[in-house]
Amino acid sequence: MSIEPFDVVDLIRTKRDKGVLSTEQISWLVDAYTRGYVADEQMAAMTMAIFLNGMEAREIRDLTLAMIASGETLNFDDLGKVTTDKHSTGGVGDKITLPLAPLVASFGVAVPQLSGRGLGHTGGTLDKLESIPGWRATLSNEEFYAQLRSVGAVVCAAGSGLAPADGKLYSLRDITGTVEAIPLIASSIMSKKIAEGTASLVLDVKFGSGAFMQDPVRSRELAETMVQLGNDAGTRTVALLTNMNVPLGLAIGNANEVRESVEVLDGGGPADVIELTVALAREMLALAGLPDADVAGALQNGRAMDSWRAMISAQGGDPDAVLPSPRQSQVVTADRDGVLVAQAALPFGIAAWRLGAGRARKEDPVDHAAGIDLHAKPGDAVRAGQPLFTLHTNEPARFERALEALEGAYRIGAEGDPVETGGPLIAGRVG
Amino acid sequence: MSIEPFDVVDLIRTKRDKGVLSTEQISWLVDAYTRGYVADEQMAAMTMAIFLNGMEAREIRDLTLAMIASGETLNFDDLGKVTTDKHSTGGVGDKITLPLAPLVASFGVAVPQLSGRGLGHTGGTLDKLESIPGWRATLSNEEFYAQLRSVGAVVCAAGSGLAPADGKLYSLRDITGTVEAIPLIASSIMSKKIAEGTASLVLDVKFGSGAFMQDPVRSRELAETMVQLGNDAGTRTVALLTNMNVPLGLAIGNANEVRESVEVLDGGGPADVIELTVALAREMLALAGLPDADVAGALQNGRAMDSWRAMISAQGGDPDAVLPSPRQSQVVTADRDGVLVAQAALPFGIAAWRLGAGRARKEDPVDHAAGIDLHAKPGDAVRAGQPLFTLHTNEPARFERALEALEGAYRIGAEGDPVETGGPLIAGRVG
Repeated sequence: MSIEPFDVVDLIRTKRDKGVLSTEQISWLVDAYTRGYVADEQMAAMTMAIFLNGMEAREIRDLTLAMIASGETLNFDDLGKVTTDKHSTGGVGDKITLPLAPLVASFGVAVPQLSGRGLGHTGGTLDKLESIPGWRATLSNEEFYAQLRSVGAVVCAAGSGLAPADGKLYSLRDITGTVEAIPLIASSIMSKKIAEGTASLVLDVKFGSGAFMQDPVRSRELAETMVQLGNDAGTRTVALLTNMNVPLGLAIGNANEVRESVEVLDGGGPADVIELTVALAREMLALAGLPDADVAGALQNGRAMDSWRAMISAQGGDPDAVLPSPRQSQVVTADRDGVLVAQAALPFGIAAWRLGAGRARKEDPVDHAAGIDLHAKPGDAVRAGQPLFTLHTNEPARFERALEALEGAYRIGAEGDPVETGGPLIAGRVG
Repeated sequence: MSIEPFDVVDLIRTKRDKGVLSTEQISWLVDAYTRGYVADEQMAAMTMAIFLNGMEAREIRDLTLAMIASGETLNFDDLGKVTTDKHSTGGVGDKITLPLAPLVASFGVAVPQLSGRGLGHTGGTLDKLESIPGWRATLSNEEFYAQLRSVGAVVCAAGSGLAPADGKLYSLRDITGTVEAIPLIASSIMSKKIAEGTASLVLDVKFGSGAFMQDPVRSRELAETMVQLGNDAGTRTVALLTNMNVPLGLAIGNANEVRESVEVLDGGGPADVIELTVALAREMLALAGLPDADVAGALQNGRAMDSWRAMISAQGGDPDAVLPSPRQSQVVTADRDGVLVAQAALPFGIAAWRLGAGRARKEDPVDHAAGIDLHAKPGDAVRAGQPLFTLHTNEPARFERALEALEGAYRIGAEGDPVETGGPLIAGRVG
C-alpha cells in the first residue's frame, strides 16, 4: 500500500461543501492525478465541485503552480532577445496570431508562440497554418531555439512536456462539462504560458456570442484572474477585453484565414483585423521595452511581411504556394435592399465547423479549404441579390447542416435600424 | 459511429446549470452508463452536479425507474404468501434485521430480505450472519423461493441482476464523495427494493451522529422522498425516523450482535433493540394485512425463535453452534462515580471497525469476533472501576487506534446532568 498524505475523497468533500483546499492539498492532488493515483472519475467530481463552488485566489495560484510543477519549463535567458507572447481565449475568425507574431518579431523581439489545434466551433492556429504546403507544426527543441534567434517568430505545437497535468485535466474537462469555470480556465491557460517561459504576455480575452465565455463581466473577471497569476509568477501580463459577438474579419476557416492574414501583412485586409493586430502588437512591444514602435508602419512597409515569409520558410512552408481551394462553394445572397444589422459569431463558427473547417473529436482531420467568406459586415448597406457570404467545402453533403446553423444568424434591416455588434471591438484593458 | 439520441456533455451542462433533465434524458443516461457508452468520469461529474444542484421529484422517480429497468425484477405472485420487507439506512449496532425477519415470518408472511455487506463504520447484515458456522449468504433462485415458501424469512445476498446500474453508480459515488445526496440515496435504495418485488416495505431512516445522514430534517426529507417513490411504484411503503446518536443495543460487531439478536428472540435483550424490532414488525405486519398481530408475544412464546432456527438451518447454518470468540479483549472502566451522560454512536462504530469488525475496502475480510460490548447505556449510574465497555479483536495491535477513536466519545457526569441521547429512539413516522 502506498503512503499518501491525503485521502482524495476528503478533498472532494471539502470542495463539495464549499471549503478551501490548502497549498499542500492542491499540490498533492495535481501530482497524484498526474501519477494516476487519483482516478479520472475522482478528478471529474472535483472539477465539477470547483466549477460550482469556485476557488479563492490563493487556491487558483496554487493550482497553476502545481500544474507548472507537473512538467518541464522553458528558459530563454541565453536567447539574447527579449521574449513576449500572446494568448487568445478563442473566437470565430480569430487569425490574429498569424499576422501578429511576425509583426512583433520584425522589431527584433522573440515570439515563442506555442499553439494548439481547434476543437468545436473555434479554430486552431496550427490548423490554419497547415493549409500552407510543406509547413510543419512540430519542431525539435534545437529548431525552436534556432528559429527564435534567427527569425524571432515561431508558431508551433507545444510539446507534451509543458504542464502535462493541464493537458490531462483539460481533456477530462472537455468531456465532463467543466470547461467554462474561471479557476480552471485561468490555471489551464496560465500554467502553460508561465511554463513556456515568456518574459511577458498579452491576453486577448474575448466575450460575446462567439466566445466561450459570453458574459463581459465574467470575461473581465477571467482577465483579472489571469493577469494577477502572470504577474505573481514574474511573467509581466496585460489583457485586452475584446468583442466576439461578430466574426473577426471576413474569413472563417483555415486557408481563407491565411489569405486574409497575408492581406493584412501586405498593408490591406479588414479594418477589425488590422485594429486588433495593431493593438495587441503595441501591448506586446511595450512589455518588451519598445513602447514607441511604429507598428502600423511595419504592416505598410513590408517589414512584417518579410518576417512572415522567413517564419513560414523556416518551418518548411512555401509562402508563395497556392493554398487549397474547395471543390464546391455556395453563395447566399441578400433577399432585399437594406442594411446588414446582425451577423452572429457563434452560428457562423458552427457553420464553418460543419463545413469541415473544424473537428468534433481530437483525432478528426480538418478540411483546410472549408469555411466561409463574408462579403458584408454589420452596418454595410446591401442590395437584393447581392452576395452576403459564400460557403466552401470539399463535401457538398455538408452544406445543408451548415445552412441550418445559419438560420436567424444574420438580418437585413432598414436604414437607421440599430446595428447589433455589441459595442466596440476593444472594450477594455486589464493590467 | 453509434447513433445516440443525446450528448452526455449537454446533459451534464443542463444539471450543472440547475436545469431539469427529461424522462427520456434520464432513461438514456442510465442505460448508456450501464452499457459503458457514458464513461465513469462523465457520470462522476453528473453525480456531483446532482449532489450540488439537486433533482425534482419527477427526476428522482425517473432515475429510480431507469435503474430498475437496467436489470431484472423479481416476482412473488405465485408464492402463495404476502411479502413485506425492511430497509435500514444503517447505523452502529443495527442488528434489527436478525430478530425482525424471523419474527415477522412467524406470522406466515414472507420476508425476502436481500442484504449487503458493511463498508466503513456501519456493519452489514450478511457479515453478521456469517459469524454462524456453515451459514451461506448466497442462494440460488430455486433455494430462495423454496425457503420463502417453507420458512418465510430469507436473508441473503442480492444477485447482481437487480438494478445493476445502481451497483455501478454506487461504487462510483463511494470513491467520488457523492454518497450523501437525497436524490441519489433515495433512488439507489428504492430501485433495489422495488426491483426485488416486495409488496410492501418499511424503511428505518436513521439520523444522528452514527447515521450517514446526521440532520433529522434532511432524514425526514429522505424518508418522504423514498415513501413517495415506493407508493408511486406500487410498493406500499412506510418509514420510521429513528435516533442513531447512541449505539443500538449493547453489542457492536458481528458474532456479538448475533448473540444479542438471539437474546431478543429468546424474550430478553436490551430494551432499545426490543422496542425497535417490535415497532418495525408491527409496521410490516400491518402492511401485510395483520395489524393486530401479537408481536411482543411472539418474542416471548418461542414462535420467533423457531422461525430463526429454521431460517439459519435452511441456509446451512447451525443455530446451536458456538460463535467465534476473540483472541484478546480489553476492558475500559469508569474513572469515577456518576452517571454515563454521553455515548456517541459514530466513534464507537469507528472503533469497532478499527478492531476488525468492518472493512475499509470491499475486498477486505471481516473479523467476526471483533467488536465492542457495552456494559452501560446513557442514563445508567456507574461506580469508579466498573467496566464501561470491552473491546474485542484477534489482532491486539488494533487496540491502540480503536481507543484513539473513543477519546471523548463517552462522558461520566453528575447525577441530574442532562443525558445526551438526542431524544427518543423512534422520533417520527412517514407514510
